[in-house]
Amino acid sequence: MTPFIAEILGTALLILLGGGVVANVNLNKTIGHGSDWIVVTTAWGLAVFAGVVVAGPYSGAHLNPAVTIGLAIGGLFPWADVPTYIAGEFIGAMLGAFFVYQMYKSHFDATEDGGAKRAVFCTAPAIPNTLRNLISEILGTFVLLITVFYFADASFETQAGATTKVGLGAIGAIPVSFIVWGIGLSLGGTTGYAINPARDLGPRIVHALLPIKGKTDNGWGYAWIPIVGPIIGATIAAAVFLILGK
Amino acid sequence: MTPFIAEILGTALLILLGGGVVANVNLNKTIGHGSDWIVVTTAWGLAVFAGVVVAGPYSGAHLNPAVTIGLAIGGLFPWADVPTYIAGEFIGAMLGAFFVYQMYKSHFDATEDGGAKRAVFCTAPAIPNTLRNLISEILGTFVLLITVFYFADASFETQAGATTKVGLGAIGAIPVSFIVWGIGLSLGGTTGYAINPARDLGPRIVHALLPIKGKTDNGWGYAWIPIVGPIIGATIAAAVFLILGK
Amino acid sequence: MTPFIAEILGTALLILLGGGVVANVNLNKTIGHGSDWIVVTTAWGLAVFAGVVVAGPYSGAHLNPAVTIGLAIGGLFPWADVPTYIAGEFIGAMLGAFFVYQMYKSHFDATEDGGAKRAVFCTAPAIPNTLRNLISEILGTFVLLITVFYFADASFETQAGATTKVGLGAIGAIPVSFIVWGIGLSLGGTTGYAINPARDLGPRIVHALLPIKGKTDNGWGYAWIPIVGPIIGATIAAAVFLILGK
Amino acid sequence: MTPFIAEILGTALLILLGGGVVANVNLNKTIGHGSDWIVVTTAWGLAVFAGVVVAGPYSGAHLNPAVTIGLAIGGLFPWADVPTYIAGEFIGAMLGAFFVYQMYKSHFDATEDGGAKRAVFCTAPAIPNTLRNLISEILGTFVLLITVFYFADASFETQAGATTKVGLGAIGAIPVSFIVWGIGLSLGGTTGYAINPARDLGPRIVHALLPIKGKTDNGWGYAWIPIVGPIIGATIAAAVFLILGK
Repeated sequence: MTPFIAEILGTALLILLGGGVVANVNLNKTIGHGSDWIVVTTAWGLAVFAGVVVAGPYSGAHLNPAVTIGLAIGGLFPWADVPTYIAGEFIGAMLGAFFVYQMYKSHFDATEDGGAKRAVFCTAPAIPNTLRNLISEILGTFVLLITVFYFADASFETQAGATTKVGLGAIGAIPVSFIVWGIGLSLGGTTGYAINPARDLGPRIVHALLPIKGKTDNGWGYAWIPIVGPIIGATIAAAVFLILGK
Repeated sequence: MTPFIAEILGTALLILLGGGVVANVNLNKTIGHGSDWIVVTTAWGLAVFAGVVVAGPYSGAHLNPAVTIGLAIGGLFPWADVPTYIAGEFIGAMLGAFFVYQMYKSHFDATEDGGAKRAVFCTAPAIPNTLRNLISEILGTFVLLITVFYFADASFETQAGATTKVGLGAIGAIPVSFIVWGIGLSLGGTTGYAINPARDLGPRIVHALLPIKGKTDNGWGYAWIPIVGPIIGATIAAAVFLILGK
Repeated sequence: MTPFIAEILGTALLILLGGGVVANVNLNKTIGHGSDWIVVTTAWGLAVFAGVVVAGPYSGAHLNPAVTIGLAIGGLFPWADVPTYIAGEFIGAMLGAFFVYQMYKSHFDATEDGGAKRAVFCTAPAIPNTLRNLISEILGTFVLLITVFYFADASFETQAGATTKVGLGAIGAIPVSFIVWGIGLSLGGTTGYAINPARDLGPRIVHALLPIKGKTDNGWGYAWIPIVGPIIGATIAAAVFLILGK
Repeated sequence: MTPFIAEILGTALLILLGGGVVANVNLNKTIGHGSDWIVVTTAWGLAVFAGVVVAGPYSGAHLNPAVTIGLAIGGLFPWADVPTYIAGEFIGAMLGAFFVYQMYKSHFDATEDGGAKRAVFCTAPAIPNTLRNLISEILGTFVLLITVFYFADASFETQAGATTKVGLGAIGAIPVSFIVWGIGLSLGGTTGYAINPARDLGPRIVHALLPIKGKTDNGWGYAWIPIVGPIIGATIAAAVFLILGK
C-alpha cells in the first residue's frame, strides 16, 4: 500500500466512524439517538484508532493536513510529500462522508432539522465569534500536535523501503486516540473540534454535492475557520517543538 | 484446547456478555435498566475482549463466520478449516444466548415488550429498508475485517503445533475490542451492528426454541440480512486487502 | 511487602474505589449523584486496576477468595497459602469499606434511604430469587475466572524469592480490569455482581458494626449467595480449565 | 527540554484539558452542556495522559506538588529539585487555566451562575465540613501516590544526562491516567478531587485575577484544604511505602 492510498483508506475510516456517530446521535429514529457527549467523543477517538491501525505502517497515519504541515514545519516530514498526503486526506474524508450518507440515508430522510443533518458532515460553532472560534481550533490542534511531536516514532518505512519518514506508526494508535478523545471531551464544547481541515472541508463539499432532502446551507461563511485555525495551531506547536527540542 | 473448542468457548463468552448487556439495559427491574448507548457498546467491545483473550492463543479467536470466511478469501486461513470454525462459532453463540436467558429469567418474566426481549438475542433494523440495512451490515463488517487484516498476526499455533494459522492471537484483544466498540458507537445506529452471522442467527434460533413468556415472532423475514451483509462486507474487505497488499 | 500485606492493601484499594463510586452515585448531594451505570462499572474496573497494580508483583493480586480458591483447585496455587490470602482479602475489604464511610460520612447523614446506604457496602438482588441469583453470581465469577486462568502469568515471586506462584502480576492489570468492567456492564444487572465473597461479606460486616444513622438491616438472609455463588463459579471454571488444558 | 519547562508544559496541558471539560459541562450553550459525570472524569484522566506523554521523558511528569513532595519524602526524588518542580507546576496550572478562559470566553459571558464559572478553575466541597473534606483530599491523594510509588520507573534522564530521577516516564501515562480516572469516579463525589495543590490554587489565583463577568468570590476560605489535604495524603503514602518497602 502506498502512502497515498494509506492516507485515503485511513482518513475514510476516520470519517466513516466519526461522521457515523454524529449521524447515530443526531438523526431521528436511530438506536443511539440523543446519546450523551461521551458517545460522540469516544467514537471519534476510536475512529482515529481505526484509521491509524490501518494506515500507520504505510504512511505514518497523518489523516490530517494539520499534522502533515506541522510535521513538515517541524522538520520531521519532507515538504515534497505534503501535497500527496493532503490530497489523500481530502479524498479519504470525502469518501468516508459519502458512505455515512449511504448508510444512514433512511434516517436522513426521517430528520427535518437541516442543522442536525449538516453536523454529520462538518462543524459549526455553538456561539459564532470569529476570534474565540479561531482560538478554539488553534488550541485543540496545538494539543494534538504537541503530543504527536513528542511520541511520533520514525520506525515505519514507505513501500519502497528507502526512506523513513515520521508519523504515528501502528504503535501510536492508542496514544493519539486517547489524545483526540480528551480534546473532544474538553475542548470540543465550543466549535465541535474540527482540528483537521480535511475532516471539515471534505465532508462539507460532500454535503453540498449530495441530494440530501431538506438540507440547510453549507455554512461556507464559517468554513475557513476549521482550515486556518488548525494550520495556525499546528504551526505554533511546531515552533514550540523546535524551540524546546526533543 | 482445540481450535474448535476455543471457538465455542470464545463465542459463548462473546454472546454471554453481549446479550447480557442488552438484557441489562432492555429488561425491566434490572440495575442497568435504560442505560445509555455507551453502556451497550462498551460492553460489546469488552465481550469481544473476553472472547479473544481466552480463544486467541488456540484458534486465533475468529468468533465470527465473517472473519473466518474473510480470512479464507484473503488467503490467510485454510478453507479446509472453515466448516469446523463456523460450527464452533454457532454452537458457542447458542450456548451464550442460553445462559443469558438462564441468568436474566426473572427479568424476562417481568418484561412485557416482546421486541425488547427478542433484542437480547438478535438484531432488528431501526427503519426496515432492505438496501440500506444491507449497506449498514456490509460497511460495519468491512471496517471490522479491514482492520483485522492489517493487524492480524500469525504467531499462534494450533494444538498440534504443526500449523500456524492467522488470527488475532492474544495480543490482538485490545485493538479488535476497540474497533468493535467504535463500530457499535458509530455504525450501530441503523441495524444494531450484527456484523457477525453467528452472533445473530445462533441466538435467534435459541429465541425460537426457548419457552420465553410473551415472546414476539422470531423476525425470520429479516434474519438473512445479518448473514448475507457481513459475508459481503468481509468479501469486499478481503478483495481490498488482496488488491492493496500488506 | 509480603503477599499477606499485598492482599490487604490491594483489596483495600479495590473496595475504597468500588464502594466509593456507589457512594458517589447513590448518596444525596454528591457531585456524581444519579450518574449512569457506565460510571459505576467503569469505576469498579478501575478499582481492580488500582489494586492489581499495587499488589500484583507481591501476591499476584488475587483480591478475591474465589480467585484464590479457583487457582488452588486448578493446581496453580498452593492450598497451604489459601488461608493467609483469604484472611488478607477480608481484612482489606473491611478496611476499604471503613474508609469509604469516613470519606462520605456527611453524605450518608444527608441520605434517608437505608437501602441506598447499604448498597455502598454490599450487594442485593434486583429481583430476589435464590436459583436465579445464584446462577448470576456463578456465571459472573465463571467469566472472571476462566479469563484469569488463560492470561494468568507465573512471573512474580514471593518476597522470599523462593517460590513462584500464579497470579495476575502487574502486567495483568489492564486485562482483568477490562474483564471486570465487562462483567459489570453485562452481568451486573441482576445481583450487582459481587463475584467475590470478600467484597460482599467484609463490607457487610462493616455495615453492621458502624453507627450509620438510619441504616436498614444487614441483609443477612441474602449474604450467603455472594459467597457460595462465586465459589461454585470459580470451581466450575477450574474444572473447565483442567479438562480443556492450556 | 529541561525538567522545569517539562513541568510547565505538562501541567498546562493537564489544566487546559481538565479545566476545559468543566467549562464544557458547566457553562451555558456549550455542545457538552450538562453531560454526565463520566465525561468529566474521563477527560481529567486523559488530561493527565496528555501531560504525562509530553513531560514524562523530561521531568518524570509529576505535574503535582503532592507527587513531587511525596516522592521526595519517599527518598525517590532529590529535595534540592523540589522548588523548581513546584514552581513549574504552578506556572503551568495558571497558564492552562488562562487558556481555558480564552477559549470558552463567549460561554463564560453566556453563563450567570458564578459558582459554575468558578468550578472551571478550582474545587469546592459538595457539603462543607472541614474534617470530612480533608479526609476526602487525603484519601484521594493517598490512592494516587501509593500507586505511583509502585509503578514509578527510574528510566528517564534529565536533559544533562547525568542524573536519573524517579517519575512516571512516558510508559506510565496509561496507568496513572487510569488511576486518576478511577479516583475521580469514586472519590470525586465529595470535594471534586483536587488531589493536587497546583491544580487548585494556580487556577484559583487566575480566577481572582481575570476580569470574568459576574464572577463570584474566590473561595479563599476553602482554598487551604486542597493544599494541605494532598500533602498529608502524599506523606502518608510515602510513609506506607517506606514501611512496606518495594
